[in-house]
Amino acid sequence: MKQIDLNSDLGESYGSWRMGDDAAILPVVSSANVACGFHAGDPAGILATLNAARENGVVAGAHVAYPDLVGFGRRNMDIASDELTADVIYQIGALQALARAAGTEVRYVKPHGALYNTIAHDKRQALAVIHAIKAVDAALPLVVLAGSPLATFAREQGLKVIAEAFADRAYHADGTLVSRREAASVLHDPQQVALRMLQLITEGGLISIEGKFTPIAADSICVHGDSPGAIDMARQLRALLEHNGIIIRAFAAREGE
Amino acid sequence: MKQIDLNSDLGESYGSWRMGDDAAILPVVSSANVACGFHAGDPAGILATLNAARENGVVAGAHVAYPDLVGFGRRNMDIASDELTADVIYQIGALQALARAAGTEVRYVKPHGALYNTIAHDKRQALAVIHAIKAVDAALPLVVLAGSPLATFAREQGLKVIAEAFADRAYHADGTLVSRREAASVLHDPQQVALRMLQLITEGGLISIEGKFTPIAADSICVHGDSPGAIDMARQLRALLEHNGIIIRAFAAREGE
Amino acid sequence: MKQIDLNSDLGESYGSWRMGDDAAILPVVSSANVACGFHAGDPAGILATLNAARENGVVAGAHVAYPDLVGFGRRNMDIASDELTADVIYQIGALQALARAAGTEVRYVKPHGALYNTIAHDKRQALAVIHAIKAVDAALPLVVLAGSPLATFAREQGLKVIAEAFADRAYHADGTLVSRREAASVLHDPQQVALRMLQLITEGGLISIEGKFTPIAADSICVHGDSPGAIDMARQLRALLEHNGIIIRAFAAREGE
Amino acid sequence: MKQIDLNSDLGESYGSWRMGDDAAILPVVSSANVACGFHAGDPAGILATLNAARENGVVAGAHVAYPDLVGFGRRNMDIASDELTADVIYQIGALQALARAAGTEVRYVKPHGALYNTIAHDKRQALAVIHAIKAVDAALPLVVLAGSPLATFAREQGLKVIAEAFADRAYHADGTLVSRREAASVLHDPQQVALRMLQLITEGGLISIEGKFTPIAADSICVHGDSPGAIDMARQLRALLEHNGIIIRAFAAREGE
Repeated sequence: MKQIDLNSDLGESYGSWRMGDDAAILPVVSSANVACGFHAGDPAGILATLNAARENGVVAGAHVAYPDLVGFGRRNMDIASDELTADVIYQIGALQALARAAGTEVRYVKPHGALYNTIAHDKRQALAVIHAIKAVDAALPLVVLAGSPLATFAREQGLKVIAEAFADRAYHADGTLVSRREAASVLHDPQQVALRMLQLITEGGLISIEGKFTPIAADSICVHGDSPGAIDMARQLRALLEHNGIIIRAFAAREGE
Repeated sequence: MKQIDLNSDLGESYGSWRMGDDAAILPVVSSANVACGFHAGDPAGILATLNAARENGVVAGAHVAYPDLVGFGRRNMDIASDELTADVIYQIGALQALARAAGTEVRYVKPHGALYNTIAHDKRQALAVIHAIKAVDAALPLVVLAGSPLATFAREQGLKVIAEAFADRAYHADGTLVSRREAASVLHDPQQVALRMLQLITEGGLISIEGKFTPIAADSICVHGDSPGAIDMARQLRALLEHNGIIIRAFAAREGE
Repeated sequence: MKQIDLNSDLGESYGSWRMGDDAAILPVVSSANVACGFHAGDPAGILATLNAARENGVVAGAHVAYPDLVGFGRRNMDIASDELTADVIYQIGALQALARAAGTEVRYVKPHGALYNTIAHDKRQALAVIHAIKAVDAALPLVVLAGSPLATFAREQGLKVIAEAFADRAYHADGTLVSRREAASVLHDPQQVALRMLQLITEGGLISIEGKFTPIAADSICVHGDSPGAIDMARQLRALLEHNGIIIRAFAAREGE
Repeated sequence: MKQIDLNSDLGESYGSWRMGDDAAILPVVSSANVACGFHAGDPAGILATLNAARENGVVAGAHVAYPDLVGFGRRNMDIASDELTADVIYQIGALQALARAAGTEVRYVKPHGALYNTIAHDKRQALAVIHAIKAVDAALPLVVLAGSPLATFAREQGLKVIAEAFADRAYHADGTLVSRREAASVLHDPQQVALRMLQLITEGGLISIEGKFTPIAADSICVHGDSPGAIDMARQLRALLEHNGIIIRAFAAREGE
């Protein structure tokens, strides 16, 4: 019996500002990448998100980021390695304590935004993040872009790696993502998206933008919850997968969960 | 054989700004109140402080504060209880992870600045902080002003309480601190300070500003490290105590430490 | 011919977070209280708001606040007078330069949130704000709660004062606002709100919660734009006023505007 | 009679943290690059610096930076052009209002840290800064690294450009700075530094690290005030220049100043 994890970004409100609809996306996913206060998320809001995740049986991970609230962690920063390591440790720890208060725990780490994109290939910053995870809890898996050099960097350092695919993104024949700067980089048809992901799970790949079947090894699928359309797309994906007997289950689920 | 804890505020630098001389005060004290990033302390600087504390055999505590960097946590804020609870959880957790990375651990909580002063008597905010500690680790002691209502609030909630006296402050006959607004509130003579604290430890009290012996039950003495004069005062205090056979030992020390 | 100003809070988005619907409320009001970055508003977003205000012929004012992004400027802070004065000068100046870049200018100052409520009666903080305005441009009017002590404080210091009423709030017979903690403090019926404000303009008062006609001298009416319901209420108010021949015009409008 | 400007970075304290010795360096220089709150400087501290600058007859300029307090504006950021433009407008405006309150005014703009280094050659970000200055006050000169492409970018856009040399830095024969990564990049001998700058002023160049006379056209010399040694170096430089009849005068001084 096949199973897959669906992950989504949560806890991205800040103070009086709302972002995303955590209540709507939580029943759809199995893993919640929870903001840690550096790109989004204030402590009280994060705590509420963690409580909601626990209530929905969704596993929580630390969505660590550059310290850039106004830029939402989407701007590249030339940050020193020791600063990045300490920033990531700080964020994971803050989330761990809030998770404990919410009756749950942090079970994985997923970098956010510009940090995610940078460490996918930049070994210096990648090692800074890897060292942070090992310093806090070497058993925490790191979620990476399927096929990225980061997967190798992290495995070499002894980390468990979870590869993820993006439900709504086009891929090249070499397994890399089509850049967002290109017109056809993002898919908008929920049915097409769902069918692609079904193929990904059952056949281990999808059709690239060049028209060929491309192998993608993914343990998790990233879906979005920041608009009603995105939530509907995620729901259709889950429904199709379940209709085909695929179990939606967190990669970091414990026995009995 | 008598023993006492000496505590001081550390890790209060921020980014390129230095504050205090952690290297100079660490050999003098047994407990380090380490800033957690809300009133002072950036992650890399905090991590360096925690490493230095471990190397000096000094126990680390979380110096939690209001979110007010520019005001150094010294401005009263009318913060909602759930926000304060989550802010304190966040700070303790961040410090716990950095402590783990430094090969040490967070063994107590001491509020900083305006938060310290407010919760000494404000039950609503006091409970918010107490609930935060219990949510993270109910075994963490809370450092409070000796004789303050907070000691009662915390004990009623089941927390272990550590009462502290201030080495360089004048006290009233009722055991309260002389307000900093009054001229004679702060003592400047290191020898006088050392002798007062010796009396505090050996006789359980000191001479109040009204000229009477006043009982003060203190498990720890707070000293400062933010100026060469302060560090010299702390050194003289430690020397006099040791000369009189008093052991300087962290209240949260483990066996063998 | 009667005329009145309608003011509303704008520019309260921050980075990737949206708040309010500036485009919807701008055609309804004559004055925009624009956030200055301390409780809300990032520079690029503020600039966009100022451009939109100019395009809609809406006058801009500086919506100055305590430095408290996560608390949206709604938490009381015990800030020193010289710090508050400098904070307000800084915010007005930042907005003035952005206004110049947008082809408009800052024509008044309105404090936000907790600062608004505090200086309505706290003379120390009120004077700190008044001194800030005088230091930047003594000709800038200050928008105050109608009937508040702040009006007196500001006039004594030579500032021009604009008194405002709140369209959706209940008033006591002594002209003070019914506290938000009371059930009937906020009015929800757009038609009732519009009729009350018509009475305010034409008869110089409204019916208090105690059932009596209460004189309120207001040069401006504050309306909200942070929800579809609020915008609809503001539209109905404007429509009724215009239907009754009342001109909606900024108190700080220049000739020909 | 020859004259030259000496500029230095001021107002870089933040809240309770001190940096540099503004009181010591102000009598030595003619232009103060005043932090605007993004990399350093809180409003009350900036205001105090501006008052001190006015009292010393020192001209104030806006030391604009990336929004990066913890990194002191020294980390490169991949910031969008419209965000950078608005950030710079905001900072100049904030400083203008504080300068007005201090009885002085902002007479030039000098980018700080990573922004300074980046726009010296990166045309996209350079134009974003140039557009900001033109939007606020097109008459404000921009201080640039002597010989850098930025000088050309800014002149093409109609800005007045002030070229500066660094008193304590080694230069290559092509007029570029020796990288800080190289051992001999920074000069430490105050007498050597003073003599080099005297030659720069009187002969229009200095001896490069390759041993050749290298022409450097500079309207201003940047000196440091962040350590006692730096202040002493600046004093010796000023003394030697004045001994040789060179007048120290702000490039942006008005007649009679």
